[in-house]
Amino acid sequence: MILSLLSRAAALVIILSIFTQANGGKLLVAPMDGSHWLSMRPVAEKLAQNGHKVVVLTAESSLSMNGSDLYTALTYSISYSKEDLVSRLEMFGNEAFTQRPPLEKFLVMQRRMKQGAAFMLDSCARMLNNSQLIQSLEAMTFDAVFTDPMLPCGQILAEHLSLPSVFFLRGIPCNIDAKATKCPTPLSYVPRMLTSLTDHMNFPQRVKNLFYDLTTHVMCNVLYSPYEQLAKEFLKRDVSLQEILSHAAIWLMRMDFTFEFPKPLMPNMILIGGINCAQKKLLNQDFEKLVNSSGEHGFVVFSLGSMVSEIPMDKAMDIAEAFRSIPQTVIWRYTGKVPSNLGSNTHLVKWLPQNDLLAHPKARAFITHAGSHGIYEGICNAVPMVMLPLFGDQMDNAKRIESRGAGVTLNVLDMTPEDLINALDSVINKPSYKENIQRLSALHLDRPIHPLDLAVHWVEFVMRHKGAPHLRPAAHDLNWIQYHSLDVFAFLLAVLVTTFFISFKCCTYTCRRCCGRKSRPKSKSKKE
Amino acid sequence: MILSLLSRAAALVIILSIFTQANGGKLLVAPMDGSHWLSMRPVAEKLAQNGHKVVVLTAESSLSMNGSDLYTALTYSISYSKEDLVSRLEMFGNEAFTQRPPLEKFLVMQRRMKQGAAFMLDSCARMLNNSQLIQSLEAMTFDAVFTDPMLPCGQILAEHLSLPSVFFLRGIPCNIDAKATKCPTPLSYVPRMLTSLTDHMNFPQRVKNLFYDLTTHVMCNVLYSPYEQLAKEFLKRDVSLQEILSHAAIWLMRMDFTFEFPKPLMPNMILIGGINCAQKKLLNQDFEKLVNSSGEHGFVVFSLGSMVSEIPMDKAMDIAEAFRSIPQTVIWRYTGKVPSNLGSNTHLVKWLPQNDLLAHPKARAFITHAGSHGIYEGICNAVPMVMLPLFGDQMDNAKRIESRGAGVTLNVLDMTPEDLINALDSVINKPSYKENIQRLSALHLDRPIHPLDLAVHWVEFVMRHKGAPHLRPAAHDLNWIQYHSLDVFAFLLAVLVTTFFISFKCCTYTCRRCCGRKSRPKSKSKKE
Repeated sequence: MILSLLSRAAALVIILSIFTQANGGKLLVAPMDGSHWLSMRPVAEKLAQNGHKVVVLTAESSLSMNGSDLYTALTYSISYSKEDLVSRLEMFGNEAFTQRPPLEKFLVMQRRMKQGAAFMLDSCARMLNNSQLIQSLEAMTFDAVFTDPMLPCGQILAEHLSLPSVFFLRGIPCNIDAKATKCPTPLSYVPRMLTSLTDHMNFPQRVKNLFYDLTTHVMCNVLYSPYEQLAKEFLKRDVSLQEILSHAAIWLMRMDFTFEFPKPLMPNMILIGGINCAQKKLLNQDFEKLVNSSGEHGFVVFSLGSMVSEIPMDKAMDIAEAFRSIPQTVIWRYTGKVPSNLGSNTHLVKWLPQNDLLAHPKARAFITHAGSHGIYEGICNAVPMVMLPLFGDQMDNAKRIESRGAGVTLNVLDMTPEDLINALDSVINKPSYKENIQRLSALHLDRPIHPLDLAVHWVEFVMRHKGAPHLRPAAHDLNWIQYHSLDVFAFLLAVLVTTFFISFKCCTYTCRRCCGRKSRPKSKSKKE
Repeated sequence: MILSLLSRAAALVIILSIFTQANGGKLLVAPMDGSHWLSMRPVAEKLAQNGHKVVVLTAESSLSMNGSDLYTALTYSISYSKEDLVSRLEMFGNEAFTQRPPLEKFLVMQRRMKQGAAFMLDSCARMLNNSQLIQSLEAMTFDAVFTDPMLPCGQILAEHLSLPSVFFLRGIPCNIDAKATKCPTPLSYVPRMLTSLTDHMNFPQRVKNLFYDLTTHVMCNVLYSPYEQLAKEFLKRDVSLQEILSHAAIWLMRMDFTFEFPKPLMPNMILIGGINCAQKKLLNQDFEKLVNSSGEHGFVVFSLGSMVSEIPMDKAMDIAEAFRSIPQTVIWRYTGKVPSNLGSNTHLVKWLPQNDLLAHPKARAFITHAGSHGIYEGICNAVPMVMLPLFGDQMDNAKRIESRGAGVTLNVLDMTPEDLINALDSVINKPSYKENIQRLSALHLDRPIHPLDLAVHWVEFVMRHKGAPHLRPAAHDLNWIQYHSLDVFAFLLAVLVTTFFISFKCCTYTCRRCCGRKSRPKSKSKKE
């Protein structure tokens, strides 16, 4: 009882501090944990610096949400610890290195994904069912919600609080983002997620694209239907997930056409691809020393992201073997067991300042798992890439860079040391790779406004104007048949058929009459 | 002979001056005369101020292209005088006031439009057939062409010179812009030009929209096929107009969703609606005096654009009669005969600083023919409108503003003085009109970058990077069947039907076998 009173008092203090400190507007941030938060955080922080009171909903155990002096973190309890999260994520990452028959691998990855999704769902359910938290949020009278729709909790909250929302995302699986924005995405040149297709598809590839589009609905139903159920219970009305998401005022899309394939957009989609490329900072002494000692051949940056903690020793030795044979220094982010054949040019580090290293003029190549954040850092800094995609959208990302001639993709399970040596040799020594990534980089960086400023502008826009209804297409008020004008075409067809039928009948009737008249004298003559 | 030599020498001087003066890039501007040039000129001038050498192709006789110190005008001869142009335009404008049966009116307007189009075509043909001019342009090695695609000459030139191009437009009739950019424009909520429909259509309206979409193709063929022919002859290859236009790198669209209805966009479409709203300048002494004398009721600005020189006297008297009855001062741009019943509150002027007057806090209403430039000035300055659309897209424009509750539309032919009084009373005294236009204005002006700077950025982008191929969708490489995946659907249907047929055959065969076995004993027993 006393504990409950104390926690209520603490919540009240937070609310009061929010009310008293607010200078500009008040923004509720409902992010997604992990790498997603890394590029969303600078927007929240910049908004706080602009004088807005920013409240960030944070699960008690989190991977990347460490709080900040700039915003208020409002925590809620969940059923798992940070260690559970880390180990689950590493299991997922390390699974990518396990050799299994394709079907078994797919099923294991599916199981792991469902387990990961269960964590997210639990976090969402506990947040929405935390009545004390919800009451606090109701009392805070925010201007808008800023959220990542991969985890639809933020939008469910926005609906409950009757607040306009701004989304921050790269995309939602199964084309949900396109459906919720009513954005046309023709199957003929917009490749679907996880297909590893480009925008130039031959006939079998277009069949594959359609096939993926149809089948992923099933997968997405499994992933997202629990959120729909949660929304129905929480909002106490019958709603679909697509309908809820369609209410977002602005979709800040981490998308840029130096990386993505050109496709249609909607007026409320704002492109902020490359927002994660931070301004180059000075390297610390250790890295500076490493980099300077690399000589004329420069250095290679190698990271497979935070989800891979351990690589099977034979694979790690293959990689180390390849690195021994190249003249470049290699800086390898790796927390696993040190391979015994590690060359003197290869330096293992537990963490590396990826963007600052890539921004160094001596960076010659970037070996990456092809996560979208890493790819953008490669583009921003014009470093050609060797890509070892592991799972999820990474195969698609690698395909995009490969199709632009700015990188080489290898299958991490099958590759030999020679493959890696050849790939590195190509991207470092064949001029086309450097030229292509430099061209992409020049196009990407030549923009009228920085993506971070653009994102901040549109969040503030929604806060100032209580949404952006003038950007909402009327398509949302049409059903499937009306949207595709099937009723209109059916009507026109009916009119055409009827006209044709009546004309035909008239003709035959006229013919019959004419023929009848002509034939009458004949019958007469017969009688005669 | 001597004259020809002299003119060649003059051209050489211009070319040399361009070569020697060029600091930044070199831009060829191929504009369209009339009001189109008014909002394109500031972009050309700003580019010149940014250090680029700007050459503007100008017909010898022109309505609005008076040259500038900032750019070099390269003139070419045409077959008509400025007086011909003005009288043709005024005939067109004044026709709007002539009462005729609908069909006759349509046919007369069509004839006038074809006559106007003939002027444009003549100008285009003479430019392309001016071999001396073309040789000069070839020698000038420009970086890009900046052109208005309503007159496709600029793009034909760009093709000939193998230069990337930037388009500046509001739209091209018959949805040609959408087709050339491969931009989806669903008939169910994207109203077609000249339909006066909104984005919320009932069934008959959607049928009308489709009907217009289908029938305007015929009209556009009449209008644009001569350009296609011209292009084929000039480029010496078989090309379609749509194909030529599809090569534009960037489409600067004079479009903003406070005015237009939200619809899909393509990555190479950049929205610069409201670019024509100039910064407010001080009024000259005469207008300042007029405006200050208007008292607490403020003033009304009335202009039907430069195409209307004369209004039939009975109509002019009706309008003057209405103005006598309102407490506001009226500033009426009018060059026709003065109506005898003109009130003391009504001041006729031959020209007025429209934007500066609308920007004045005492401006209460704007009576306009609903041209897009005027409408944007109304939105920028938050002045509610009474719209008297005359022809072309003006009915559509008026419908857009009316559907937002920011203005009232009147039929100029049918309206009585009372109608005009009531409309003015509504927009001035009913708070909703002022609130709505203020809301639209606030949304329109709240942008991260001014449309003029955005336009300049993208022209410079194309000059720097020799185009923007990364924004070109792969849809351009597909035919109609492929784009709509009709071949894929047909294939899947064939697979389904075949599977069904084989399954059916297998079943019937199995059934027959089973029945056959069962029936054999029966036949035996029969024999027995």
